[in-house]
Amino acid sequence: MNHSELRVNGDRLWNSLMRMAEIGATPKGGVCRLALTDLDLESRDLLTEWCHSEGCDRKIDPMGNLFFRRPGTSSDTRAVGSGSHLDSQPTGGKFDGAYGVLAALEVIRTLNDAQISTQLPVELVVWTNEEGSRFPPAMIGAAIYAGVFDLEYGHSRSDLDGRTMGEELERIGYLGDSLPDDHQFSAFFEAHIEQGPILEQMSLPIGVVTGVQGVNWYDVTIIGEEAHAGPTPMESRKDALRGASDLLPQIYRIATDSGFDARITLGEFRIQPGSRNTVPSRVEFSIDMRHPNLHEFDRVDQNIKNIVNLFGKESGLQVEIDHIWRSPPIEFDPNCIDVVRNSAKTCGYGFNEMVSGAGHDSVHISKVAPTSMIFIPCDGGVSHNEFENTSKEQAEAGANVLLHSVLARAGIAG
Amino acid sequence: MNHSELRVNGDRLWNSLMRMAEIGATPKGGVCRLALTDLDLESRDLLTEWCHSEGCDRKIDPMGNLFFRRPGTSSDTRAVGSGSHLDSQPTGGKFDGAYGVLAALEVIRTLNDAQISTQLPVELVVWTNEEGSRFPPAMIGAAIYAGVFDLEYGHSRSDLDGRTMGEELERIGYLGDSLPDDHQFSAFFEAHIEQGPILEQMSLPIGVVTGVQGVNWYDVTIIGEEAHAGPTPMESRKDALRGASDLLPQIYRIATDSGFDARITLGEFRIQPGSRNTVPSRVEFSIDMRHPNLHEFDRVDQNIKNIVNLFGKESGLQVEIDHIWRSPPIEFDPNCIDVVRNSAKTCGYGFNEMVSGAGHDSVHISKVAPTSMIFIPCDGGVSHNEFENTSKEQAEAGANVLLHSVLARAGIAG
Repeated sequence: MNHSELRVNGDRLWNSLMRMAEIGATPKGGVCRLALTDLDLESRDLLTEWCHSEGCDRKIDPMGNLFFRRPGTSSDTRAVGSGSHLDSQPTGGKFDGAYGVLAALEVIRTLNDAQISTQLPVELVVWTNEEGSRFPPAMIGAAIYAGVFDLEYGHSRSDLDGRTMGEELERIGYLGDSLPDDHQFSAFFEAHIEQGPILEQMSLPIGVVTGVQGVNWYDVTIIGEEAHAGPTPMESRKDALRGASDLLPQIYRIATDSGFDARITLGEFRIQPGSRNTVPSRVEFSIDMRHPNLHEFDRVDQNIKNIVNLFGKESGLQVEIDHIWRSPPIEFDPNCIDVVRNSAKTCGYGFNEMVSGAGHDSVHISKVAPTSMIFIPCDGGVSHNEFENTSKEQAEAGANVLLHSVLARAGIAG
Repeated sequence: MNHSELRVNGDRLWNSLMRMAEIGATPKGGVCRLALTDLDLESRDLLTEWCHSEGCDRKIDPMGNLFFRRPGTSSDTRAVGSGSHLDSQPTGGKFDGAYGVLAALEVIRTLNDAQISTQLPVELVVWTNEEGSRFPPAMIGAAIYAGVFDLEYGHSRSDLDGRTMGEELERIGYLGDSLPDDHQFSAFFEAHIEQGPILEQMSLPIGVVTGVQGVNWYDVTIIGEEAHAGPTPMESRKDALRGASDLLPQIYRIATDSGFDARITLGEFRIQPGSRNTVPSRVEFSIDMRHPNLHEFDRVDQNIKNIVNLFGKESGLQVEIDHIWRSPPIEFDPNCIDVVRNSAKTCGYGFNEMVSGAGHDSVHISKVAPTSMIFIPCDGGVSHNEFENTSKEQAEAGANVLLHSVLARAGIAG
């Protein structure tokens, strides 16, 4: 048999996606399935049932990460891993995370149907709390697997009601004792919707993901003075919002001056006292800056700091910038990237080599195992939104590329 | 006796101000005395006690406005009124409102001490809920006295807990039945802190207030599209905040291009969804625009609308401007202005003729009686703030100008 002709069952994959999307379904067609809630429990139980039907056993680690193993024929127990996450944003979509998990399940189902044995084990993985919506920070399950934080840190993360991840893992019965060393990966592949518009704009079905943008997060504060909106002449004011209106265009201009790959987003913006007839005394906003190239990433970082600090000296206002997080650009494993590229060619799909703008569990996994990702388009690039959508054909194409990537690294037995 | 030598007692005035400021005193030295609370009741009772000691009787109208009358000798019962308000902002100061009330009390005390009879009655007035902090809109007691709204409207204004002014007036025992016709004014004078920095900057003790700036209030909404901060290229975004950062400088420029008297304040500013790694889909902000000259007032109004609407056409974002309130400029009575100017001269005080930037009860009273105002400086122009402050000497000077203004219009008997 020529295994290059092997394909997944697109209808079965789509049906699994739609069935999973019923858990936490929202009226507008999205999903609210926050980490370690009863709905997350329900999704984990459903996946477990499906995986057990495929003959996979389940291991759970102390962060609730799930490992479903299809055994290999070799004495090498390092599996080819594949998966993503099942938790969602509060008003999230059906595909962010769940697609990567169910594409991996479809790969296992396809191998079972075709009665193909692989040399290395194939392992479906679910990483806990990728979104970080309930328990900040994001990607914590994968981070602790990869040794970025210790377990105590992970267990003590708490939600707004003060409940910790450790307590909630125990409550829902997903606090395991499997160790990371029991789940070393020979390679790891994550399929995911793009969460951006590029593949759709290029009319290409597959993204060969070569890395992940670096991210810098800043908090900026501008302090002026409250004053009455009527009697205070414009030139006597220390208006923090008027100051911000001078500074913001300069910050956005850094991105547009730095080429296609630079991104700057001011996603939080608050003013005080927030009264219609009072000159604002305080503005606080966040900056999210991203770039895939380390040199440019650091240059844009320096530009942002310079412009904000110069504004502080010249504006007559008190200005502070706090660099609260730096995650440098990630480059995925060259061989895993090759494998994904070749798999797309094997299946006859056009593809674009691209950098992920969003963070993913694979950012952390790439620190301890050869890793790469496969993107499929999503409608209008919309994600973190109840209207997030893709098509059955696109979902199927991504799963086919995942199938051949897994096969290439796991090796066909006999 | 040459009555032009008559002066108020500055120490007594200051002591009354400090005693009143104990009611609702805040830790930072300000006052929180919201309309029709138990604290407002306490301040009304204290003032009543003081006025009864001076031989004035009290009338209360159905909005809880208070009228303390010192009788005149003439058969003309139209009084010369003077006063302001006793309610405060949530984090207000000791002088906003209370100064005008207690300066009027000091005038009555001074007339009593000097055993001066006036031809017309002299009436101390307290207007209910000038600030509007608890029951929007502001200046409602004076507005209903002047027939701007009807009584039913006034009584049905409610606070955030759903309690209405009518219920609260009844609860604190200040729901009266005196009618506006029982309190027609031959003239009305309101002393007030400036709430702006101009007198302090000019080192002048007295503002002769010739009118009040017109005020326009607008709500502006900018609607774009939510998107993920990472994968979405800058040129694919419909970023509502980035749009606002282009529009805001144009709005502020209208004020600076329109000369000293124009004021533009954006006091409320909110964005959605307000997530650090999501491109903002919606921005809402308020515009407060003021100008004392009707022609310029309407020209600046048109400029604001034109610029926002043009931005809506050119930006690719959905932009709406809603003109929610228009209060045209007020010109005070020329004779009352003359009286104030001459009283300042009589007392030997330097003065500045100026327009009030803030709204005051006198805006409404001027619609039914000859009216003007007297300003005194406040430290740094700071008001609506616990650090609001003035000096005993400045408070005394304003009360002396008020004394001679009242005398000029009430006429000395015999």
